[in-house]
Amino acid sequence: MGEFELIRRYFLPLAGRQKPRSLILGPGDDCAIQRIPSGRDLVFSVDTLVEGVHFPRNYRPDHLGWRALAVAASDLAAMGADPECFTLALTLPVVDELWLEGFACGLKSASDAFGLELAGGDTTSGPLTLSLQVHGTVEQGSGIRRSGARPGDLIAVSGTLGNAGAALDYLPDPNPSADMLAVLEHYHRPWPRLDLARAVRQYANAAIDISDGLLADLGHILAASEVGGRVESARLPLSPALTRLKGDMAVDYALRSGDDYELCLCFSPENWERAPESLKSQLTVIGFVEAEPGLYLDGVDCRLEAVPAGFDHFRRHS
Amino acid sequence: MGEFELIRRYFLPLAGRQKPRSLILGPGDDCAIQRIPSGRDLVFSVDTLVEGVHFPRNYRPDHLGWRALAVAASDLAAMGADPECFTLALTLPVVDELWLEGFACGLKSASDAFGLELAGGDTTSGPLTLSLQVHGTVEQGSGIRRSGARPGDLIAVSGTLGNAGAALDYLPDPNPSADMLAVLEHYHRPWPRLDLARAVRQYANAAIDISDGLLADLGHILAASEVGGRVESARLPLSPALTRLKGDMAVDYALRSGDDYELCLCFSPENWERAPESLKSQLTVIGFVEAEPGLYLDGVDCRLEAVPAGFDHFRRHS
Repeated sequence: MGEFELIRRYFLPLAGRQKPRSLILGPGDDCAIQRIPSGRDLVFSVDTLVEGVHFPRNYRPDHLGWRALAVAASDLAAMGADPECFTLALTLPVVDELWLEGFACGLKSASDAFGLELAGGDTTSGPLTLSLQVHGTVEQGSGIRRSGARPGDLIAVSGTLGNAGAALDYLPDPNPSADMLAVLEHYHRPWPRLDLARAVRQYANAAIDISDGLLADLGHILAASEVGGRVESARLPLSPALTRLKGDMAVDYALRSGDDYELCLCFSPENWERAPESLKSQLTVIGFVEAEPGLYLDGVDCRLEAVPAGFDHFRRHS
Repeated sequence: MGEFELIRRYFLPLAGRQKPRSLILGPGDDCAIQRIPSGRDLVFSVDTLVEGVHFPRNYRPDHLGWRALAVAASDLAAMGADPECFTLALTLPVVDELWLEGFACGLKSASDAFGLELAGGDTTSGPLTLSLQVHGTVEQGSGIRRSGARPGDLIAVSGTLGNAGAALDYLPDPNPSADMLAVLEHYHRPWPRLDLARAVRQYANAAIDISDGLLADLGHILAASEVGGRVESARLPLSPALTRLKGDMAVDYALRSGDDYELCLCFSPENWERAPESLKSQLTVIGFVEAEPGLYLDGVDCRLEAVPAGFDHFRRHS
């Protein structure tokens, strides 16, 4: 199968479904063309996934398709952006139609779920690698940045933490228990918090998606905002499945694993007060921001831990 | 060296130099933010280069940095777009500072030369692979598409063709001759035709950059425009160095190799007449468009040749 046939068969069905279309020209020309509505800014981010590094070898292609777009879309959520479209740079070792069907199917589910239309891409031969760039828009001046946290802000997180990190231990298990399946679902099918992020953007001072672990990512907010923070481990939201599987270690997963793609947000107490209950019910306050730099967990400074040790993306799933 | 230090040292110097900046927010947050001037559209394209497939193993990193951005920027030229910024998804097997210095240096030269500012990216561990997405803008409705060729149009190309393709034969040569160096320069330091493209966009009906070879890429214009074309091989612009090196085979290189990143354009005879000499002197008319589908070279139909055989990007430089 040629490259053009491959694109036509598997990837063109992901283009041209969004209404109203911001894409003036989709896949098939030298470039795609997008019209940004007046009064809005383009917001974009690229994420790469490498086989054996960011996902295991022989990982199910439908899970990979979903996960790749979810991981990228999570950065749009972290800015409070409205999703628009994405490009796919796909490097494949061989043209395996069964694999491509599964991959395109998972990608299409995610594309539909997140409202991201395929705008273009590049298909090349080589070790299995994916780079997805997502495009969204925000009202001019309204993107939530990492640098907006202020002393006194409450620190909150969405959902429950640590599930996808724990799931890595169970990926090879041929007969996973119900609890294992519950945490595995977080790994295979993460849901970027796009809806929550849009609802929260008028209230939050700062946001980041938790891709490297709570301590590391909260550390990025504190560094960018030139402030410090205190977190209480007893407040961390944990799923019952994670608690049953990992016992006392559950908190460590919640602090250090990031594959759930939940959000970490900072709110002034006044804005937190004003925010609707429907929104606050999706969040858990885990600590607060203070002027003095440092990141204290249960009173112990763990700033050094918050900086990923070395080249973090060298962490391997082999 | 950590990922953050790596980005700070080598890649942040490529951000924030463009004036006036369309980038509202550059590298360092979850997303970059770009403001598209009112009345303009965003134009974007992604290109992947894989070691051993799109460039040889142990290829000089400064050449790679230049080449990667040039290849991507060439798609902006093919739309007649004004360059704005780019993202870099870089997958590296090891953190080699000498390599990174060379790579960043070549990338910076290209970034300065083409007016493309670094907006963001992702740095990961794995087999050496680069995906660069370039962003440009065009006046709304003014991007040159592949589909605009009309019967009677003149077909023209920029520069000379076949040099970079011939250069592949001389890459391993430890003592290249002056002619070899001349064609190697086209391979190592291609210049996307951004200035020419902007000057030409009010005259051209259709455009493509020659990345897969003249026959293949002209074939894409003809297919998208639902027309046919005739090309005379005697009219193909060849460099003296290529002619001396390859003799009668020079024409084959000009027809089938694409790494020069020249433009192929279609003009109505009236627009060609109106276009200034300063512009026409950079172009060579090689044939014309006709209503009947087909691509005739010296009267012989070579449409089948124009379709890349199979998965074209499997072509390897090993």
